[in-house]
Amino acid sequence: MKERAQRAIAECLRIASMTEERGTEEPGRITRCFLTPPVHQVHALLREHMSRLGMTVHTDAAGNLRGLWNSPGARGKRLVLGSHIDTVPNAGAYDGVLGVALAIEWVELAQELRLPLRIEVIAFSEEEGVRFGVPFIGSRAVAGCFDPALLALKDASGTTLDQAIRAFGLDPARIGEAALDAGALGFVEVHIEQGPVLEAEDLPLAAVTAIAGQSRLTLEFQGHANHSGTTPMHLRRDALAGAAEFVASVEALARRTEGLVATVGKIDVEPNAGNVIAGAVRAHLDVRHADDAVRRSAVEALLCEAQTIANRRGLAFRHTCQMDQPAVPMDERLTALLADAIEAAGLPVRRMTSGAGHDAMVMARRVPAAMLFLRSPGGISHHSDESVLKEDVESALHIGEKFLQRLVAEVG
Amino acid sequence: MKERAQRAIAECLRIASMTEERGTEEPGRITRCFLTPPVHQVHALLREHMSRLGMTVHTDAAGNLRGLWNSPGARGKRLVLGSHIDTVPNAGAYDGVLGVALAIEWVELAQELRLPLRIEVIAFSEEEGVRFGVPFIGSRAVAGCFDPALLALKDASGTTLDQAIRAFGLDPARIGEAALDAGALGFVEVHIEQGPVLEAEDLPLAAVTAIAGQSRLTLEFQGHANHSGTTPMHLRRDALAGAAEFVASVEALARRTEGLVATVGKIDVEPNAGNVIAGAVRAHLDVRHADDAVRRSAVEALLCEAQTIANRRGLAFRHTCQMDQPAVPMDERLTALLADAIEAAGLPVRRMTSGAGHDAMVMARRVPAAMLFLRSPGGISHHSDESVLKEDVESALHIGEKFLQRLVAEVG
Repeated sequence: MKERAQRAIAECLRIASMTEERGTEEPGRITRCFLTPPVHQVHALLREHMSRLGMTVHTDAAGNLRGLWNSPGARGKRLVLGSHIDTVPNAGAYDGVLGVALAIEWVELAQELRLPLRIEVIAFSEEEGVRFGVPFIGSRAVAGCFDPALLALKDASGTTLDQAIRAFGLDPARIGEAALDAGALGFVEVHIEQGPVLEAEDLPLAAVTAIAGQSRLTLEFQGHANHSGTTPMHLRRDALAGAAEFVASVEALARRTEGLVATVGKIDVEPNAGNVIAGAVRAHLDVRHADDAVRRSAVEALLCEAQTIANRRGLAFRHTCQMDQPAVPMDERLTALLADAIEAAGLPVRRMTSGAGHDAMVMARRVPAAMLFLRSPGGISHHSDESVLKEDVESALHIGEKFLQRLVAEVG
Repeated sequence: MKERAQRAIAECLRIASMTEERGTEEPGRITRCFLTPPVHQVHALLREHMSRLGMTVHTDAAGNLRGLWNSPGARGKRLVLGSHIDTVPNAGAYDGVLGVALAIEWVELAQELRLPLRIEVIAFSEEEGVRFGVPFIGSRAVAGCFDPALLALKDASGTTLDQAIRAFGLDPARIGEAALDAGALGFVEVHIEQGPVLEAEDLPLAAVTAIAGQSRLTLEFQGHANHSGTTPMHLRRDALAGAAEFVASVEALARRTEGLVATVGKIDVEPNAGNVIAGAVRAHLDVRHADDAVRRSAVEALLCEAQTIANRRGLAFRHTCQMDQPAVPMDERLTALLADAIEAAGLPVRRMTSGAGHDAMVMARRVPAAMLFLRSPGGISHHSDESVLKEDVESALHIGEKFLQRLVAEVG
């Protein structure tokens, strides 16, 4: 397994050299958006790897590379494995790609164990939402929920999604055919955590129980801009002082609510001058929790708090809601199998919520879905310092072995 | 006096039509920076007005228009009156200009009362610091503290201060001659308050006891930028949450410290994205008080508080000090005369600190200086809505009469 883990990491690093930027000397720092030229290289590499394993490979009309392994003697439905191969700008080597490399390794493990199992590996074309501003283009197609209206989206250069797909040699009219048929039993995605939880707890991996629901709101505090020298404290209507009080409330509520994360990460001040009391502040609030009721009640409480702060300070307050996305629970049966596999591999079973969205969240609309998180050293992702520990990758392979065995035993 | 007040206001409105912008239809909304073409018009108007009163008028090498009234029989030193005629962009009609118009009216009052008094009226060329980024160019010259190095300053178009003065027809080599000689007994400036205090207390005027000292600092909180969804609350080092706690401390300290104003009006967040925990925040702190010891101890306390907040949150903290400008007390004797005059005019005597800088602050380096504030309706200045109440201007004329009478009685 040690050798296999090294091979999976090497595969990620090889793919990391396939980037939109030329002559980059720093390895592992890459930008690879939806169906840009380096994606052809990645497809060629993965296609060769999968073909060597005897898999049937094709690219669907949404640009997802899909390889099918039909084990001799396999009956029943097929397991779908995978993750995405697009990246954010200046990304690291593992976000998404590791899940694809490990999916292929799991197929090879299944072959060595002679498991009578059908496995489909999908390298999703788009998850990050960078090029067209909309994420999950690849998994939407596979989950059968791709809205053809998206084909009119334009990237920064004015190219439409429709044109980008055609330029890659595919036919957008056939995206409907990319949807999973009834022969899929479920989807499992391995992904780096992109957070500091596992590292802080000194754990290598976790089974994901749910993708947290998300609320995003913009809150506006309107006060009165005034001279910072000539306006005494009691005659001020300071929008920034009000917003600061709100930021403290957000943090306090999240700290005392189990599993809640709530953040004001963006704040825009008017006029934002050192000698002028802030006349208006726009604060951006991001609230996430695995339980939608907890999240919505937190948002309600924070809006109420914001209104109270505004009233006490003579500020006008209003808000707009940009996003209210429900939590997506992972499939209990598949997740239990994953947890069993973790235990069988001799590791502590940690279950956790994913605070970020993943392809598995979209796939869950169509098939039972589960996720395995690998520890992110330093909690770092979307950065060239993104890394994984070789031992953790090895653990993911052990877990894969145990998981596939259990799946065959259960599914027959 | 009612008629005289109307005339002073009309003079301000006439000067307001002399603006850098052409064809402006909204009266009272003006931009008139240091020695720009409309200043020639203002000088022509004021020169004619002062000449009609029998004053000797000239423009000094710093562009200050100066008129001298030598009353028949006057012995002793001369009183200097005035304010500035430059404006910020999109200014109102009264900031500075009202003090010049009233200075001329006071001369006429002195003439009518046949007071044996010498009076010099100065229309300072520059106070706002807009064109060359450095304020008080006019009063620095008159106070004898103009640094010739300033002549190399450039405006936005690349014109140097030296060139601007020459272009106006003056010789910058002679700025030294603009300094007040030993024949000046003191300086009195009438100015709008530019704050909400008098209006809130329903008072027309106040004697200024001091120009507040000012500290300006930049405080940097350095935390760790991280994903707002995947980073639980207890593993965050949120620079914005730390800065928000500091903003609350600033407000709390100022509220409990008599006469202190302290403001965070500008805040710059990195990366300032809704779904990223703030990695760094730069907050700009402005602290003012009439007593330097109070101000400095407040700054010390706030820096200590910032460090404590940073330590508790695992943030790095550093600060830089941009300004530590001492308070400038107004002359006690002149201010007492002004207060007597206010009382003699039948008005309540309100004494207050000026939170903003004025020409009188610079003039105080050379001669005893005093200031009279007029209520600013709505606390509004530096805006086309800037206004004055006719009754308050009338009161300022009554006070002028009483003040000049008392001065003559005292100085002989």
